[in-house]
Amino acid sequence: MVETVSLMSGVTITSLKQIEHPKGDIFHALKATESSFSEFGEAYFTTVHAGVTKGWKKHTRMRMNLIVPVGEVTFYLHSEQIGKTKAITLGVNHYARLTVEPGIWVAFRGGEHDLNLVLNIASLSHDPLEAENDELNQFPLL
Amino acid sequence: MVETVSLMSGVTITSLKQIEHPKGDIFHALKATESSFSEFGEAYFTTVHAGVTKGWKKHTRMRMNLIVPVGEVTFYLHSEQIGKTKAITLGVNHYARLTVEPGIWVAFRGGEHDLNLVLNIASLSHDPLEAENDELNQFPLL
Repeated sequence: MVETVSLMSGVTITSLKQIEHPKGDIFHALKATESSFSEFGEAYFTTVHAGVTKGWKKHTRMRMNLIVPVGEVTFYLHSEQIGKTKAITLGVNHYARLTVEPGIWVAFRGGEHDLNLVLNIASLSHDPLEAENDELNQFPLL
Repeated sequence: MVETVSLMSGVTITSLKQIEHPKGDIFHALKATESSFSEFGEAYFTTVHAGVTKGWKKHTRMRMNLIVPVGEVTFYLHSEQIGKTKAITLGVNHYARLTVEPGIWVAFRGGEHDLNLVLNIASLSHDPLEAENDELNQFPLL
């Protein structure tokens, strides 16, 4: 049974199935019938080196669906509305989908793996005009 | 410039951008505005062990968009209409999207890497009733 929990207003975490197969496993990501899905704009991968943090970035219109099929990534979510940062670590051993609504600041740090891979299934195509960037020290990471 | 070439009727290959970044690279996969995209049904990952081949499988309604962000995978495409099999190898060093229309038989073999990862951005959600499976020896691999 798929379970969705709220990390904070605008941020949910949904458990995802990993299906074992002798020739190579299968990992779920997102179905159009799930409530995490709104619209398909673009899917792309981003990687983040071990111990390195990317961010902060805030999308003003994009809903993100973030999945980590390789390595491990800690995501930091900051809501200006409630003035709080929360963190969640995803990876093969914590396999889940992180859904982030527009308006939430996001930073993410790579775990101690050779490759930390994030798939973003985004509700719109890349558009620098709908995203804001800020210095990493703008908000506390926790 | 994105370039799409036809491998055979019903199968195209589209070059994809890899954007270098000091904190971790970015890899394009699929935009809704590209001709490879029709509809979003489901995105999922499948892995295939080194030297192992999965297949044959033919979807009767699903269009697949296949991307290999990790490792290397050789795809075999068989058209019963023209009685031919063609092969294409994708991976980080041959980074492209393979778009397969319904009706084409597909098999795929993992390269000599610890992990060979395939993302399928499919036009419909998993439905065993719309796919046919056949033994690996049903068609020649080349």
